[in-house]
Amino acid sequence: MNNPCSPYHKAIELIGRRWTGVLIMALMDGPQRFSQLAAAVPGVSDRLLSERLKELEAHGIVHRTVEPGPPVGVSYELTAMGADLRSALSELQAWARRWLENPPPTS
Amino acid sequence: MNNPCSPYHKAIELIGRRWTGVLIMALMDGPQRFSQLAAAVPGVSDRLLSERLKELEAHGIVHRTVEPGPPVGVSYELTAMGADLRSALSELQAWARRWLENPPPTS
Repeated sequence: MNNPCSPYHKAIELIGRRWTGVLIMALMDGPQRFSQLAAAVPGVSDRLLSERLKELEAHGIVHRTVEPGPPVGVSYELTAMGADLRSALSELQAWARRWLENPPPTS
Repeated sequence: MNNPCSPYHKAIELIGRRWTGVLIMALMDGPQRFSQLAAAVPGVSDRLLSERLKELEAHGIVHRTVEPGPPVGVSYELTAMGADLRSALSELQAWARRWLENPPPTS
């Protein structure tokens, strides 16, 4: 059977990886230093954060720039492909606010 | 630090679980029998499919109905909370079509 959902499936597995969706949302505010992203995603090790950013870079969602120093800094920003996730992730955020902030009583 | 993204984070981890996003999308067409869902998500074991459906039921996204037989059948449908994911998942699907079906050349 053909799976017409295949690109969608890839998309959902990509943004659904632990911390990835939160990182993309943090980058919607503009380019961020590694340390800023670490602060935006509390409780994540630098190693895991760096791994997720590399994945996003490999998928063409994030662009990494090394800024000449001193001190040398690394910043991350969304590519056009990454920025284009805004409406999907904003809708998901709105849904989460509606249903997960004040969960309705279970019937 | 407060994490204002917390409900969003929960949402993205919920729908990002393997097969979950695809299952929800399949249920957007209306109630489905277990066998129909299995056909919509090829390559998934019945056990894993059943586990994912139980998770979605526990989160209030899917409602399970046992239909009196014979033969006895089980059908699944989205709750109001589940159906309300339509715009977020449709946006994500559109994004996936734009960017993952015909990936742009990497520069």
